[in-house]
Amino acid sequence: MRIGELSRATEVPVATIKYYLREGLLPAGELSSPNQASYGERHVRRLRLIRALVELAQVPLAQVKEILESLDADDVPLHEQIGRAHRALTPTRKQTASDEARAAATTQVTELITRRGWSVEPEAPALATLIETVAALRTLGQDDLVGFLDAYADAVERFTELEIDAVTTNPTRDQLAESVVIGTILGETLISSLRLLAQESISAHRWKNR
Amino acid sequence: MRIGELSRATEVPVATIKYYLREGLLPAGELSSPNQASYGERHVRRLRLIRALVELAQVPLAQVKEILESLDADDVPLHEQIGRAHRALTPTRKQTASDEARAAATTQVTELITRRGWSVEPEAPALATLIETVAALRTLGQDDLVGFLDAYADAVERFTELEIDAVTTNPTRDQLAESVVIGTILGETLISSLRLLAQESISAHRWKNR
Repeated sequence: MRIGELSRATEVPVATIKYYLREGLLPAGELSSPNQASYGERHVRRLRLIRALVELAQVPLAQVKEILESLDADDVPLHEQIGRAHRALTPTRKQTASDEARAAATTQVTELITRRGWSVEPEAPALATLIETVAALRTLGQDDLVGFLDAYADAVERFTELEIDAVTTNPTRDQLAESVVIGTILGETLISSLRLLAQESISAHRWKNR
Repeated sequence: MRIGELSRATEVPVATIKYYLREGLLPAGELSSPNQASYGERHVRRLRLIRALVELAQVPLAQVKEILESLDADDVPLHEQIGRAHRALTPTRKQTASDEARAAATTQVTELITRRGWSVEPEAPALATLIETVAALRTLGQDDLVGFLDAYADAVERFTELEIDAVTTNPTRDQLAESVVIGTILGETLISSLRLLAQESISAHRWKNR
């Protein structure tokens, strides 16, 4: 299909498609004549993915680019490709806690991971985020929330096996890698909106008369 | 304390503090002389909160301002104040799904909420986000993930009561509202990093030899 049809199929403006092509987020079409490119199903899928990441999940464009590059890196072992996608999905956060708060948080998180029996690479970005968040909660005087780490980990363990099962059913490696990206990002949006709704439902009952 | 001391106590540069004062994110200090303002514990707390929201949770500054305004609205009933804070915490998302996908998603989400017995206001922003995300997952061909809604809701229900209990122990109304903000935002960062770590741990075992 031509670029106009691709735009209609995905509801992405032609100018935006051209921008994604220039930025390397979308692979070039096949040249059908010297100044006419043709696009296929692969472009439709990729554009829908970009829209979901940018507009719905509000992932910054630079990070989207990194995520897509990891999807296209299919010349490395699968575990490595999944790992790259996964890492690209974790934003790097600034350190805001004091060294002292961070040291205490590191001990607490390390003990948690040992207790759960998780095997986690020491340089996983999510590990740094977890430690930094625990340290920030301590600094903000919210030690109660830190005490929830095991309750949260219990809840997370309940669905993670299911998530990995679902992703593993994908027939091709490309689809598997794409599912990891979509599942990680949009699954998080599902969980966070369900949490807000559950909080609203419970707190409405409790606080209505205070 | 003077602005220099406030800066040292919170590790926020003086120029940034002045910017927050101008933008109305931080209340003005008490004038101790015509060109000398004095700051207290309240400013230290507020600055730490702003840092956690902006630098760690990466909440856009305009949204932070809205959140802080809801914290300062203590002339309305508590339930209303909490509701405002909660709403300010939910970013508005662009609609990306087709009308057809959104209609199917709306039915599915409405049935879920009825099944769980949650009471949720129809105009809650998290409800719109949930529907839009389910619709996007359908459009992206990820129906498996949509099937996880009940598993995610089960998990979320496990800790929401605990969260509300913890927040309710706050002695003053100001502290309660602040805890809702911190708990909602940083609790989400805790859950999302724990999920990434659990996924990494399980997938490393499964995919290492594929």
